[in-house]
Amino acid sequence: MSIWYTEKHTPHAGITLEIRRTLFSGKSEFQQLDIVETEEYGRMMLLDGLVMCTERDEFVYHDMIVHPALFVHPDPKQVLVIGGGDGGTIREVVRHPEVELATLCEIDGLVVEKSVEYLPSLACAIDGSHPKVKLHIDDGLAYIRENRDSFDVILVDSTDPIGPAVGLFEKDFYQLVHGALKEDGIMVAQSESPFYHAEIQKNMYQALREVFPIVEMYQAFIPTYPSGLWSFAFASKKYHPVRDFDRERAANRAFRTRYYNEDLHLGAFMLPTFAKENIEQQ
Amino acid sequence: MSIWYTEKHTPHAGITLEIRRTLFSGKSEFQQLDIVETEEYGRMMLLDGLVMCTERDEFVYHDMIVHPALFVHPDPKQVLVIGGGDGGTIREVVRHPEVELATLCEIDGLVVEKSVEYLPSLACAIDGSHPKVKLHIDDGLAYIRENRDSFDVILVDSTDPIGPAVGLFEKDFYQLVHGALKEDGIMVAQSESPFYHAEIQKNMYQALREVFPIVEMYQAFIPTYPSGLWSFAFASKKYHPVRDFDRERAANRAFRTRYYNEDLHLGAFMLPTFAKENIEQQ
Repeated sequence: MSIWYTEKHTPHAGITLEIRRTLFSGKSEFQQLDIVETEEYGRMMLLDGLVMCTERDEFVYHDMIVHPALFVHPDPKQVLVIGGGDGGTIREVVRHPEVELATLCEIDGLVVEKSVEYLPSLACAIDGSHPKVKLHIDDGLAYIRENRDSFDVILVDSTDPIGPAVGLFEKDFYQLVHGALKEDGIMVAQSESPFYHAEIQKNMYQALREVFPIVEMYQAFIPTYPSGLWSFAFASKKYHPVRDFDRERAANRAFRTRYYNEDLHLGAFMLPTFAKENIEQQ
Repeated sequence: MSIWYTEKHTPHAGITLEIRRTLFSGKSEFQQLDIVETEEYGRMMLLDGLVMCTERDEFVYHDMIVHPALFVHPDPKQVLVIGGGDGGTIREVVRHPEVELATLCEIDGLVVEKSVEYLPSLACAIDGSHPKVKLHIDDGLAYIRENRDSFDVILVDSTDPIGPAVGLFEKDFYQLVHGALKEDGIMVAQSESPFYHAEIQKNMYQALREVFPIVEMYQAFIPTYPSGLWSFAFASKKYHPVRDFDRERAANRAFRTRYYNEDLHLGAFMLPTFAKENIEQQ
């Protein structure tokens, strides 16, 4: 018997992956969590039935949500990750020697617990063993409301703007993030697919521009995400992601990256015409 | 009743698209040809059961197989397209005012005939009406063997290296292309997915480097192709795709492009680390 998981990215199109077995299936107070083993992509985490990450292609997402901001900020000591309970983002953050403290604020403790159990290659830095990592099982909004002027970089590693993450795509949230950042702080947030989610992008970037002086979109290719083309918002108080990029520091990084590199950093901001048009200012 | 087409990109992973109806289904002497109407991607052409193009995302592939070479070559007068019977590549070629003659050499007349009938938005320049377009229903290898030192740019718009296109990924073929190009000619060929086809890429780029002094890979995102990340080989006798790029001419183009632009041209050559590693020289 062959079992296939199909995710519809629209009512009429999707991806389909062969499943070897289910490792965990359960419901937290926030969402449905499933961890399965696929034939092609290794282990895969689903929240409310949607692919969050797979072992085979997670390196793209996690390289790209972390390294651009951390190679633009000249001294990223205090980094906060909101969401990202699988641990992949924190894993990349702590590779940067400048980081003194990496805080994970994830609303759903079950995601952290089961990632540590079933996705150790992602969760290796959130299993309690890493000296630079602090873990808060808490609502991201509440946490940043209480921690003003505290972070050099905030990474919003959220699910789609439905369910528990809906508030993370609104102007009120970006104002809280702005307040929680130091005076030269940078926020990066995943910002959906330019190919499928033009309307979400339009609203999100408009809200970001009302809060931050520098807002740019960059792209990455993630095969298991809708359309394969994904994007991130770089919102910053002072540093521009291209003009203030420390190419030398990125080129001399002491860790290996399978997606990110110092040239790709620049190329990621060179967007297809249709993607630029999604977020054009009115 | 809902009907879905599923293409397996590997034995264990694929995409799935809802189908409204079949417009044409038939067999030529070379391959099976199907043209269907999808709910999400408009009309779609399949050869031997694999997606060749859809109306919704073909702009990416056709922008990217054409415009980089045509904005690098300073005076692309004579352009040959091998394969590309749907007409999308020729359509983009004739947008360049420098082009005096665009020749299409497609082995399978049925593909051209049915594209003109069912995919007019792609085939608009190969329906016999365009004064700069010449059509040859012929084997690409035979054609370039007979036409030496003739072309400024040759675009190899082939299917995957199985079936009728297998010879288009081998050194003998690249030598024929080299011979059919003028002394400053450029070849671009689709070069599969860096994510799924590392081995094909390795062999292809090695063969290309034995024939051309300048060989670079560039990328584009195509949602209906395996993994969503696609690539093209830029092989050239004289002009480098980045150093000799005429950014000014590209920025001042008189036609609209939904994917390509003068910044993206440069960004497309800034590859993910894993893609660079696929084609590293030994």
